[in-house]
Amino acid sequence: MSGNQSKINQVGILHVAKSNDAYPYDKETLHIKLKTVKDDVEQVWIRYGDPHNYQPIKEKPDQYQWDPNSICQEKMTKAYQDESFDYWSIFIKPEFKRVRYAFIMNKGEEELLYGAHGIFDLNESPNQKNDNQVFFNFPYINEEDVYKAPEWVKDTVWYQIFPERFANGNPAINLEGTLPWASEKEVKNDMRFGGDLEGVIEHLDYIKDLGITGIYFTPIFEATSTHKYDTIDYFKIDPAFGDNATFKRLVEEAHKRGIKIMLDAVFNHCGFMHPYWQDVVKHGMASQYAPYFHILREPVINFEIKDNMPQIKFHECVGQLNYETFAFVPEMPKWRTGYPEAEEYLLSIGEYWVKEYDIDGWRLDVSNEISHDFWRKFKQRVRAIKEDVFILGENWDDSTPWLRGDQFDAVMNYEFTYPVWHLLDTSRDYNVSDFKNDMSKLLANYPENVALNMFNLIDSHDTSRIHTILGEEEKRVRLAFAIQMTFGGSPSVYYGSEIGLYGLNDGNRQCMIWDEEEQNSSLKSHVQKMIALRGQYSALRMMPIKWIDVNENQQTLQYVKETPSDEGTSIVYIVYNFSEEQQNIDIPEAYQTEVIDIYYQKGIQLNHSLTLDPLSFRVFEINLI
Amino acid sequence: MSGNQSKINQVGILHVAKSNDAYPYDKETLHIKLKTVKDDVEQVWIRYGDPHNYQPIKEKPDQYQWDPNSICQEKMTKAYQDESFDYWSIFIKPEFKRVRYAFIMNKGEEELLYGAHGIFDLNESPNQKNDNQVFFNFPYINEEDVYKAPEWVKDTVWYQIFPERFANGNPAINLEGTLPWASEKEVKNDMRFGGDLEGVIEHLDYIKDLGITGIYFTPIFEATSTHKYDTIDYFKIDPAFGDNATFKRLVEEAHKRGIKIMLDAVFNHCGFMHPYWQDVVKHGMASQYAPYFHILREPVINFEIKDNMPQIKFHECVGQLNYETFAFVPEMPKWRTGYPEAEEYLLSIGEYWVKEYDIDGWRLDVSNEISHDFWRKFKQRVRAIKEDVFILGENWDDSTPWLRGDQFDAVMNYEFTYPVWHLLDTSRDYNVSDFKNDMSKLLANYPENVALNMFNLIDSHDTSRIHTILGEEEKRVRLAFAIQMTFGGSPSVYYGSEIGLYGLNDGNRQCMIWDEEEQNSSLKSHVQKMIALRGQYSALRMMPIKWIDVNENQQTLQYVKETPSDEGTSIVYIVYNFSEEQQNIDIPEAYQTEVIDIYYQKGIQLNHSLTLDPLSFRVFEINLI
Repeated sequence: MSGNQSKINQVGILHVAKSNDAYPYDKETLHIKLKTVKDDVEQVWIRYGDPHNYQPIKEKPDQYQWDPNSICQEKMTKAYQDESFDYWSIFIKPEFKRVRYAFIMNKGEEELLYGAHGIFDLNESPNQKNDNQVFFNFPYINEEDVYKAPEWVKDTVWYQIFPERFANGNPAINLEGTLPWASEKEVKNDMRFGGDLEGVIEHLDYIKDLGITGIYFTPIFEATSTHKYDTIDYFKIDPAFGDNATFKRLVEEAHKRGIKIMLDAVFNHCGFMHPYWQDVVKHGMASQYAPYFHILREPVINFEIKDNMPQIKFHECVGQLNYETFAFVPEMPKWRTGYPEAEEYLLSIGEYWVKEYDIDGWRLDVSNEISHDFWRKFKQRVRAIKEDVFILGENWDDSTPWLRGDQFDAVMNYEFTYPVWHLLDTSRDYNVSDFKNDMSKLLANYPENVALNMFNLIDSHDTSRIHTILGEEEKRVRLAFAIQMTFGGSPSVYYGSEIGLYGLNDGNRQCMIWDEEEQNSSLKSHVQKMIALRGQYSALRMMPIKWIDVNENQQTLQYVKETPSDEGTSIVYIVYNFSEEQQNIDIPEAYQTEVIDIYYQKGIQLNHSLTLDPLSFRVFEINLI
Repeated sequence: MSGNQSKINQVGILHVAKSNDAYPYDKETLHIKLKTVKDDVEQVWIRYGDPHNYQPIKEKPDQYQWDPNSICQEKMTKAYQDESFDYWSIFIKPEFKRVRYAFIMNKGEEELLYGAHGIFDLNESPNQKNDNQVFFNFPYINEEDVYKAPEWVKDTVWYQIFPERFANGNPAINLEGTLPWASEKEVKNDMRFGGDLEGVIEHLDYIKDLGITGIYFTPIFEATSTHKYDTIDYFKIDPAFGDNATFKRLVEEAHKRGIKIMLDAVFNHCGFMHPYWQDVVKHGMASQYAPYFHILREPVINFEIKDNMPQIKFHECVGQLNYETFAFVPEMPKWRTGYPEAEEYLLSIGEYWVKEYDIDGWRLDVSNEISHDFWRKFKQRVRAIKEDVFILGENWDDSTPWLRGDQFDAVMNYEFTYPVWHLLDTSRDYNVSDFKNDMSKLLANYPENVALNMFNLIDSHDTSRIHTILGEEEKRVRLAFAIQMTFGGSPSVYYGSEIGLYGLNDGNRQCMIWDEEEQNSSLKSHVQKMIALRGQYSALRMMPIKWIDVNENQQTLQYVKETPSDEGTSIVYIVYNFSEEQQNIDIPEAYQTEVIDIYYQKGIQLNHSLTLDPLSFRVFEINLI
């Protein structure tokens, strides 16, 4: 590479100390990352040592210098690359939990050192190599600050249930106007079909049989709507869903089957009929509950109310409401979590369902609009009751500020969802390279210990169904599940997507189909098999992903996941053909060996080329001793 | 600029949502910043609107889109520039405390949009302008999360006292071996001169007269050493300094004079003679206090102890100690703040001195090696007792992770110190541009509300004296104080540097000179005057700094500070000549007017040029109506 005259592109180099770029992976290991411009520098090393390891200088024994013998220098790995950047990575274990470090990088003759005080040309100032004052600092790994999710989460496959539409197990509690089950396919939010908790209990074996080990329920507390995001009583199961005793039984039955239960904590706002809010509606600022909300001015209510409900449309509310709400929804007044009594009320709800009903997790609705301060207290309070309660934020955007170990264990990972949709959606101009670039950005961003627990979904009650997004092409849906179950993280199946439910936007809340004749059983078997493989091969649950080949012409993609163990490395090798043509993909020499096709459960010999059917994938186990 | 063919340099563009780049300045204002490559883009706009402001689409009233009428677009200001980047800035007040935003930037014909999902060429995809899904998100300004320091801090000028060496007010409590005051100029750490709290009380008027409004004491609790960073009893004033009653009187006398008192919380470690540690020395792992510390293995003590002190040198300890310490100092065993009883013990100390002695602030020793978790609790606990207690971290490196509003109010800002030293130190190859670049980086980094409270120092007990660093050239020292007092932030004077004390490294702890004949009175007057000006002209205490001119040939520098008010803008205009020659500096047209030289207290007419003596500065007030 000598003779390369172009200089290293310095403006694209980035590392931020004490961030996702330098975080404790566990109580003795730091994960350090560096971003450089794509294909620019040739190699990066990390140079590091203890911040306090000063030794007397031989010639001047009353003076001290950083002990040069104690400094380590190690090669970093180019873990990911996207369309603009290379992402370098290394794990180190500083002997005394403290480290000063800098990056050394080269390109031809050029050698740079990058530290907290900028970038230095080592050909001009070689001494910077041993001046730890210009290095970055990770002052000390404090165990209390290390991100630590419950152990069980990374091995969990979730099933998301929208209770009104999953199963009607107790018609006796149907509300007036309940429609016959699945009698409408074009569902609207105000239709009631009588889904309830008894229905869930009845189908726990179905869920278990699918391979599921955790259920995430959208809200089940008493509320006005069918979606129940407008809570009236946080301590009571909605009467149309059952009662608290039924819920207790549900948790017990689920636990018997090894299934965890996660509820939806709607703490950003309550429903219009919540008694505290109703007191404000009646008494305005004079209500003792007025400070529980964000009242802007009186009169609190400046619109018509009929049958206890605001007679004003969402989009007419912009700038017109005298109190803060979720979005501009007048039915959802926003809690003022900064008011100590309101805070205590909501925290006590968080505790109640863990303590009294032994739930295993809380999914936090609109979590990004509630204060960090509240979530820190929430974590402390619920974890004090049950040390392995899972805390999942709804956040749709990059969620780093919530995932530093003090607030959430994970978020609903819509940043995973989009690339899967876009790749498989024929109406998009988005190819395998775009997919690999976007996923690489995501993988390079979050800490790996966090990524292991991310709630990776391909649809939910808040999106169209995966079938609808992918034009109801089963082969594409199968590929979406294949990506999801081999990616790492904690995947979630939205009830019924495994048997072919479809639906645009809120139309995603169709009734579950229980008649096996009407279920898409081949798809169900596929989902079941992918879940089983994920359980069987720990490499599939692991991070990171190692991209092997991305072929834009063929629209084929290959990656591997690895689990190092004492007996060697177990590798799972996954290959995809996203095109509508048959493709012959090149197999790298390292994998031209006897492998097990773990999906079809047969041993085969991989040679230099492999033929893949249109819109198909294969998944192999390779044991390298 | 048309015809400019080079494209915008995209790899150098950076904005991180929910970070120092997008933080709440107060409960209704967001400060948004963007970094681009130096002199690359011509203009940047921010485009923003409410995340939830969806309106029905005219043609399809059942569908919604982001209301295009509700979107704002505003020009950003290029606030700072360093050697590599431009830093753009704007303050916005989103109507509903929520905002989705993106940046639009241009260069010639090229127009880019930068949002959470990357950079888009608007000539190719103009629709991205109204697709808020690709925008960054600031979900909601929660008042609880907004950084808020005590109001008084930004107006405070600190005086740092090392009590053993400030004044001996009560010789009756001198320890055996106490030397006559100031009898040694080359001080060593183990020399005792009898400085005490009574001495401080006696000189409170001196301190007040200097213009000081806050005293920061290095540790005063019972300890073995003269520096007292090896605490024995956290609830007791060191007997050589006085008793708790004397301290109470000191606080009262200081408060009478409008002077705040800040103590040093040494919570990373204790002293060897602390009774809890002594119990561990005696009983090893069997001690009930063993879990208060980080014991690695038994025997806890594997070295000789004589007169209760370890007979092993700092640098011999690397890897040899069986317990964790501060650095490799065997006399300073590290507290395990993650152990609830240890945590509670330390928190109770934090509370005690606020509650019982009404102190106004805590400076946190080695704060970067203690957990964030601990500091969050610390803040909650001490603020619950006194809502305007100041919390100051020692941290030497970039301290963003501690300054998000949940932990510290400020840190000892050594990142401010270095550029001042380097600029004025003749042995350095560092010019006015380097200074302006480094300061710009610093100013562009921290939130402005944080910067207002930063503890800006030019020396301390942990550095050589400013006189020594600057070769004892008084003119240079005067310039250092001038920069410090006009910069903004909360400046600190290390006792005696105002009257000419010198000293290398720990030699900085010379006895204060009280004989006025021996004091450098002209320097003292200068410091006094600069402090007074800072108090008189609020612009001097404000952020940001507006660089007017940086002249490398002349080594001259000009900047202004502004206070907008109802009657117009009050501007303070500061000009420096850092060279050893007289210089004629160009005055910008806007400032060629009648001004007041506020240092020399006279009105003058500024014309196109001004002559500055070698190593001098001038400071003018300009009132623009």
